[in-house]
Amino acid sequence: MIVNNLKILSMAIAMVMGNITFAQTAKVNDDFKPSEVNQPGKLYPQVNSQGCVRVQISAPDAKMVQLDIGGVTNNLVKDGNGLWTGESAPQDPGFHYYQLNVDGASVPDPGSRYFYGAGRWGSGIEIPADDSHIFALQDVPHGLVSELNYFSKHTGLMRRCFVYTPPGYEADANMRYPVLYLQHGSFEDETGWIGQGKANLILDNLIAHHKALPMIVVMDNGYAFKPLASADGNARPASVFEEVMMQEIIPLIDSRFRTVVHRDHRAIAGLSMGANQTMRIAMNHLDHFAWYGGFSGTANYPSAQPIDVDTFLDGKFKNGSWVNQQLQLLWLGVGTKEEPVFPKSIGAFRNMLEQQGIRHVFYVSQGTAHEWHTWRRSLHQYAQLVFK
Amino acid sequence: MIVNNLKILSMAIAMVMGNITFAQTAKVNDDFKPSEVNQPGKLYPQVNSQGCVRVQISAPDAKMVQLDIGGVTNNLVKDGNGLWTGESAPQDPGFHYYQLNVDGASVPDPGSRYFYGAGRWGSGIEIPADDSHIFALQDVPHGLVSELNYFSKHTGLMRRCFVYTPPGYEADANMRYPVLYLQHGSFEDETGWIGQGKANLILDNLIAHHKALPMIVVMDNGYAFKPLASADGNARPASVFEEVMMQEIIPLIDSRFRTVVHRDHRAIAGLSMGANQTMRIAMNHLDHFAWYGGFSGTANYPSAQPIDVDTFLDGKFKNGSWVNQQLQLLWLGVGTKEEPVFPKSIGAFRNMLEQQGIRHVFYVSQGTAHEWHTWRRSLHQYAQLVFK
Repeated sequence: MIVNNLKILSMAIAMVMGNITFAQTAKVNDDFKPSEVNQPGKLYPQVNSQGCVRVQISAPDAKMVQLDIGGVTNNLVKDGNGLWTGESAPQDPGFHYYQLNVDGASVPDPGSRYFYGAGRWGSGIEIPADDSHIFALQDVPHGLVSELNYFSKHTGLMRRCFVYTPPGYEADANMRYPVLYLQHGSFEDETGWIGQGKANLILDNLIAHHKALPMIVVMDNGYAFKPLASADGNARPASVFEEVMMQEIIPLIDSRFRTVVHRDHRAIAGLSMGANQTMRIAMNHLDHFAWYGGFSGTANYPSAQPIDVDTFLDGKFKNGSWVNQQLQLLWLGVGTKEEPVFPKSIGAFRNMLEQQGIRHVFYVSQGTAHEWHTWRRSLHQYAQLVFK
Repeated sequence: MIVNNLKILSMAIAMVMGNITFAQTAKVNDDFKPSEVNQPGKLYPQVNSQGCVRVQISAPDAKMVQLDIGGVTNNLVKDGNGLWTGESAPQDPGFHYYQLNVDGASVPDPGSRYFYGAGRWGSGIEIPADDSHIFALQDVPHGLVSELNYFSKHTGLMRRCFVYTPPGYEADANMRYPVLYLQHGSFEDETGWIGQGKANLILDNLIAHHKALPMIVVMDNGYAFKPLASADGNARPASVFEEVMMQEIIPLIDSRFRTVVHRDHRAIAGLSMGANQTMRIAMNHLDHFAWYGGFSGTANYPSAQPIDVDTFLDGKFKNGSWVNQQLQLLWLGVGTKEEPVFPKSIGAFRNMLEQQGIRHVFYVSQGTAHEWHTWRRSLHQYAQLVFK
């Protein structure tokens, strides 16, 4: 009895410490395969049918090596050749950031490709999902993803956006297209929607199956700050993203791409921080946008309190019938495994919409958290509704 | 005397071991600044006015941490907080790959951005050069860099190329442009000419100053293999890059972009392995190309022996006056610090050209090795001559 209690206590301690591996407590299926986002020719990291991640790294002189994924660290085991191997518990389907810890140094896994998220370029892994086909690279007509550098007066800096043009864009010089402005979340950048989000492949596949209209998609960086005056070096930088979007990005896109320059053909959407930003921008400029999408976010975040329509966003939702008239689509989505603050704040926003009689579409992503698979699915849904 | 000899012996051993740091043997200027290719907000790695690289990483439990750059490992020193810091000897101006070793694990530096080269995605650093302005990101008109996915029948795989279209390309739907096909080297891929080579910025700057004609530049992956027959799994894969280039890439580009479909408006160039590949392709298809560029490479590599024109590339250089008639430009370049095999094999090739009376341009990059700065300079030179 004492032995059993000690064992339970030691397991509990290990779990609290976050240092117990799934392999020590449960059966791990031995059907690991190299991850789809490995570097060319690299055998590790691997994923099995349970969604466990197995990593391997040579570190002959290390005392401790860990896999750090989903907020849990998993100890690796060393063999006689100095090769460390270990597994995580099953992960949700979709994309996850992770890193390795080698004797206390947090480093990217040399086997994975790298993605910008969580405020750094680092390792990512893909857990196959039942609906991975929505973003699979297939032999269908492919649009182009173009990188565009531009000088921004509002920030005093060179900035960059990525622009998806649909298949057929180059063929007919007279055809003009609607535009979706699509934003990333906190600690991410303009590379996220292509690198992790696979926005181009989602659109290619939808367009190939006639489920979405051909459209241009513009992905810029949601971090944009006024240059600090030299005399005021300690001031908190002021965001000018709305100014950059309205006065720099949109005119640039309308001048360089064959867009339809009209609110009915311009949509805006974003995830998390981007959902918050784009809702503010859309409501401040309804003369520019007729289609809104909020993926795992709304402008009342993080509050779950009832919204006061008189003051929220300067009363922009006060006249419900006017909002209905203006917005051809108000789309919201959230994953079932997101932290409570997201469904709660989105719920408070939806309560306000219902009280105001404002139409909206609400989508729930089953079994996914505040991560990219929720947002891929959200884009996949949203893109089928816009501009129709 | 014995002490002195022992000291010299121990220094010699340390240098042979590659584990002595520059800081231990010479004065290091204390004017380090964060590298231009750091991740956003990261203070390390840094570079000083001598071209020394300083790295820093937290690894509280590590026994040994090293900076591995230019084939030399430099030991870092640990402070009381588990922070390791150390410097390299001065590096050549330009771009270099590097990595960190943490208790025997070779990993990317979490502070740097990542580049594909040396067969892996890993750390890179930029040592400012006197001529860094040739690829500086400036407020000039910028072309687009487009990523294009396509299915390749010759390999049975989806492949990808990057396509630079010059400033103004979108403005005039009737304008057609010449095309440069530009290839990377061994253990690199289609991302190299943009990521490390800055080909887009070199062209943007040249075009802005009217030093190069507006052109399209296509960068594909030089590794392309026939699918292995299942019954013959041990066969060495056969390269089909020439077939992919001639039958898939060029028709794809001519169909999707506004090119001038004529040999006089089509150039091909490459670096190292890419110079070798593109010389073979150019000489096999002079009906398709009128401009060739070999950056640090030729098709006789690695041989320094006199070339037999009767057999070399099936006698393609035998009729010198015909080659002169066909090639409007045969351009060769090499860096002064490259390993002898490069100048020697290029020298043997040039001797053959002279014996055959074949005109060519020869460029020498001062103070650079078999690295990207040699190739940036080569492109900068070459792009000013083609299509004129």
